[in-house]
Order: sequence, then structure tokens, then C-alpha cells
Amino acid sequence: MKVYFSCSITGGRDDQPVYRRLVEALLEDGHTVPTAYLAEDDIPAMEKIVEAGDVFQRDTAWVNECDVLVAEVSTPSHGVGYEIALAEFAGKPVFLCYRSGAIVSKMLLGNPSPLYEICCYQSTKEAIENMRLFLNRSARE
Amino acid sequence: MKVYFSCSITGGRDDQPVYRRLVEALLEDGHTVPTAYLAEDDIPAMEKIVEAGDVFQRDTAWVNECDVLVAEVSTPSHGVGYEIALAEFAGKPVFLCYRSGAIVSKMLLGNPSPLYEICCYQSTKEAIENMRLFLNRSARE
Repeated sequence: MKVYFSCSITGGRDDQPVYRRLVEALLEDGHTVPTAYLAEDDIPAMEKIVEAGDVFQRDTAWVNECDVLVAEVSTPSHGVGYEIALAEFAGKPVFLCYRSGAIVSKMLLGNPSPLYEICCYQSTKEAIENMRLFLNRSARE
Repeated sequence: MKVYFSCSITGGRDDQPVYRRLVEALLEDGHTVPTAYLAEDDIPAMEKIVEAGDVFQRDTAWVNECDVLVAEVSTPSHGVGYEIALAEFAGKPVFLCYRSGAIVSKMLLGNPSPLYEICCYQSTKEAIENMRLFLNRSARE
């Protein structure tokens, strides 16, 4: 499947090691992840060079092309919140995960849409397992 | 006008004094602001009690009822990003402001929609002046 992976960039990179492992698991399973490089260590520097208008056009096009959106939401981010809405409004299944203890917006946690699956994880392994179950279910539907 | 004021709650409250002054200006001008209490000092404690599902239902209804959305986006927030998308997709004018020096998501800054007005302010006074100009223009359209 084509997976839009969404994570904080300007909002903070404390959870970047988790982003990287989630994306590695997606690629291992044969999925296409256009945003894979956003999970790398040095992405904020790279993204600084790109014009905001180009980022917007590129990322909205990718969200619309993807089969599902996967977002790590432990670190607050306007862009991720916007992209989640974009995927939902386009009717795409959305997987949100966050580490246990992170305080996540109730606007995300309270969404009753059946498109959403929300996972609070104790370990990165648990996040990956739940993401894989979500993707298997989405592939069957 | 009915103004949805959107600001960070769980994402961080460092800019709360600005939120308060923006909302005070809106109320002084006679606008209705259903989210006014979100700009107060002790709101995070109050919001902790409310169920996520109730927050989602309440806030999405308010966005849909409002004439415009005003958001302070200096502090990253998933909920604010989601609400901005919600307002845009409902065809509402959107005013985004942030203090000079704050790093704001390119997904917000790069949106080419004519519904958006984005203001980088040096002072709260400047933010209020620009917000008032935006509201005057929106009222005339």
C-alpha cells in the first residue's frame, strides 16, 4: 500500500527514533512511503530549504494519493493535525499512535469516525505491531 | 460575528497572555466567541475533566457555526491544525497569527487558499490590529 507517514518536524523532534523505526517497518513490509525521509535524523535542516508553498503542494498531493495515513502524535504539530483532517475528509483510514504518558489533543482522541484507529503504546515494538494489524485490516477492506 | 478562537491547550500554554488579549479585543468589538474561556489562565485544568468525545463534538459544532476562525499558531498543536482544516473545508475565512521568531509549520504557511490571512506580529498590539482588519474585511464580504 501507499502510506502517508506523518510526524512532527518544526514542532519538535524528540520522538524521531520512533518515527524512524515505524518507517523502517513499513518499508520492510513492502509499502511505499513518500514521506520516509521525514523520519530521518537530519530532516529538519533539509526541510528548511524548501519553500512553504512547495511543501504544501507536495504533502497535500501525497496525502490524496495514499491509501492510508499513519501518524505518530506524541509531539504536538499543526501540520500533522492538518494532514490528519485532510486524510479523514478524503475518506482514508487513519492510524494514530502515541507513547504512553504523552498528552494528546482531545480533538484527535475524541474523533468518533470509524476511519480512525488510535494506539497508545508502551514500546516501539507495540506501536509497530498495532500499525501492522491496522494495515492488514485496511488492505482487506 | 461569531468567531471561533483556536489556541494550544495540551500542546503548551506559553502564549496564553496573547490568547487572552486577542479574545478580549474580540469581545470588546461585540463578537461572539464560544471558545473565549480557552484563553483564560486556568483552562487546561478545566479541560482535563471533559471527555475527549465531548470536546470533539462541541468544538466541531462551534467551528461549523462560526463565521470565521482566528488561530494563534506560535505553539504547535494537533487540535489547532485539525480545526484550521475543518474551517477551511467549510469555506470559512481563517486568520492565523504568530509572534515573530516562532517556527510555524510550512503546511500552514504554504496554504495558497484565498480564505487564509497569515500575520507574523512583533507585538500583541500589531496582532490585534491585523485581526481587526481581517474581521472588517470578512464582515464586508
